[in-house]
Amino acid sequence: MSMSPRERMLAACRAQRVDRPPVWLMRQAGRYLPEYLAVRAKHSFWEVVRTPELAVEVTLQPLRRYDVDAAIVFSDILVIPEAMGAGVVYGKGGPTMTRPFEGEEDLARLNDVDVASSLDYVGGAVRLLSENIHPKLALIGFAGAPLTLASYLVEGGPSKDIRHLKALAYHDPDMARRLLFGLADKVADLLRLQVEAGADVVQVFDSWAGLLTPADYEALALPAVRRVFARIADLDVPKILYLRGAASHLEAAATAGADVLSIDQTLRLSDARARLGPDFPLQGNLDAAELLGPPERIRCRVQEQAAQTGGQAWIANLGQGLVPDIPPEGVKAYVDAVVELG
Amino acid sequence: MSMSPRERMLAACRAQRVDRPPVWLMRQAGRYLPEYLAVRAKHSFWEVVRTPELAVEVTLQPLRRYDVDAAIVFSDILVIPEAMGAGVVYGKGGPTMTRPFEGEEDLARLNDVDVASSLDYVGGAVRLLSENIHPKLALIGFAGAPLTLASYLVEGGPSKDIRHLKALAYHDPDMARRLLFGLADKVADLLRLQVEAGADVVQVFDSWAGLLTPADYEALALPAVRRVFARIADLDVPKILYLRGAASHLEAAATAGADVLSIDQTLRLSDARARLGPDFPLQGNLDAAELLGPPERIRCRVQEQAAQTGGQAWIANLGQGLVPDIPPEGVKAYVDAVVELG
Repeated sequence: MSMSPRERMLAACRAQRVDRPPVWLMRQAGRYLPEYLAVRAKHSFWEVVRTPELAVEVTLQPLRRYDVDAAIVFSDILVIPEAMGAGVVYGKGGPTMTRPFEGEEDLARLNDVDVASSLDYVGGAVRLLSENIHPKLALIGFAGAPLTLASYLVEGGPSKDIRHLKALAYHDPDMARRLLFGLADKVADLLRLQVEAGADVVQVFDSWAGLLTPADYEALALPAVRRVFARIADLDVPKILYLRGAASHLEAAATAGADVLSIDQTLRLSDARARLGPDFPLQGNLDAAELLGPPERIRCRVQEQAAQTGGQAWIANLGQGLVPDIPPEGVKAYVDAVVELG
Repeated sequence: MSMSPRERMLAACRAQRVDRPPVWLMRQAGRYLPEYLAVRAKHSFWEVVRTPELAVEVTLQPLRRYDVDAAIVFSDILVIPEAMGAGVVYGKGGPTMTRPFEGEEDLARLNDVDVASSLDYVGGAVRLLSENIHPKLALIGFAGAPLTLASYLVEGGPSKDIRHLKALAYHDPDMARRLLFGLADKVADLLRLQVEAGADVVQVFDSWAGLLTPADYEALALPAVRRVFARIADLDVPKILYLRGAASHLEAAATAGADVLSIDQTLRLSDARARLGPDFPLQGNLDAAELLGPPERIRCRVQEQAAQTGGQAWIANLGQGLVPDIPPEGVKAYVDAVVELG
């Protein structure tokens, strides 16, 4: 059995037999690559995101270095807040909003977003990327989860505890629900747009789910992410849900409607398997910091993870996105170790 | 059965029958209280920590407002890094070190710390506090866990992923072990000093354990925190281990040698009970953000938590420390709701 990278990725997402586990890395394009920094020296982050030729160029950069099975279009989870006029600014401590969410008026601005026209640059990048990598590689489109987007909007930037969003939900649950469901509808539109432009797989990032109690995850995050997957249920592509805080929310997240759960590094893959059953496809979850370690250690970790999953219904990936000071050599050692499993 | 707050706290820590659950809050003294800010307007943070009269004054402030069962001496987990000359500076984004850990020389400076003399101000504050609150209230002494202290030292400040400490452990496990064990010895000395000065209970804060994989928790954090508890095993006081990331590390942490596990909000108390058995004393774990909510919601959460634990072998507390914008009224509603359980 010899499979193309794209066949391998799609099969693993569907728990179909693979010749070896597919592999890609969250944030595989980005600041740890000198060729990315070279592009960024000439263009702002938003310029790269909004210009399909530039977005595709940086998306292709890691593919020239590593034998990954999938490309994820270079974009940002905050394109929807940006489209509604929240004024996303990328600073040193993370993105901030010049106009954080305050109530009805902002909700109206969210509901007024026409994804097809406001975010056509995402579709343009996916379309151009498809011409470059298909049929060989799988193409992943993505969006932020409603909870994570609502957190940025309400907190106005990164937060250790998203307590203002929680307080909104405690005092005005109807407003919180309308914000989360309003976001869910735009997220679904954005995923649909990417699939129509050629994405083979979609991934929803719920990076801040791990800040919620199990009760709040079920009350706030889960209904909204369920709404996303329900609205794109007709699309015949595998759907991946990433969540940080997998150890706390695994069983709940498994009911969201995603085909694959992508989990962070704080839960062993073997434990996730035991909790969800052998057929539920998993993605993850090497600690990104491991890529700072010696190559032989990286290879051991990959072999452990392959043993824990049986190498099937598993997409090798990190537990979170790559960070800027990871050496490209560490990424190569990781990808090579997965390829060697074949 | 009528118990004093101190008797109630000690009994709950030992899984002995209580009339109602004891309650206190991590960081119950601090910036959310106007009377604390009034003290800080005249004195720097380190001045307050280093001057027993000031430390005791701010420790007593919440006791004048709330019917809590225990006081925790006002101090800081970074007194050991400060004593070794790391130069702890409290900035807006959290504490940073002017001299982060770099190797042998810093290790020698750590090993040279004489806790009894360098940190006598902590003992002084505990002694004076004991005169003020005993025998009525329980008095808690504390220290940072080796992993958490090592993280601050190696990262040089707060970090989202403590990847430099992890990289040190991957490349030079012997150095990482000597740093963690060296810290463990000073942590044990500091806890002993506080018990000798009058502390009834000690708590070790492993705030960054939740950033580790289960394997790294067991390889790095756990041996060091075990060493702490082993070195103070002769002290006849209840020992509490706080960890963020309880859902990931619960069973491992339960083997550390602590009498009580204090857990963050991302694991239901009922699940923690199920995993550790009914007799293992637990502390926590209300989401601090709940204190921003309506009082009737706070009361419901407390009643839920009491139902989940049976109200025995349980110390009501938060899942993490209080943050500055929590209203004192929310704290009062919380403490009153626990008192009403009696």
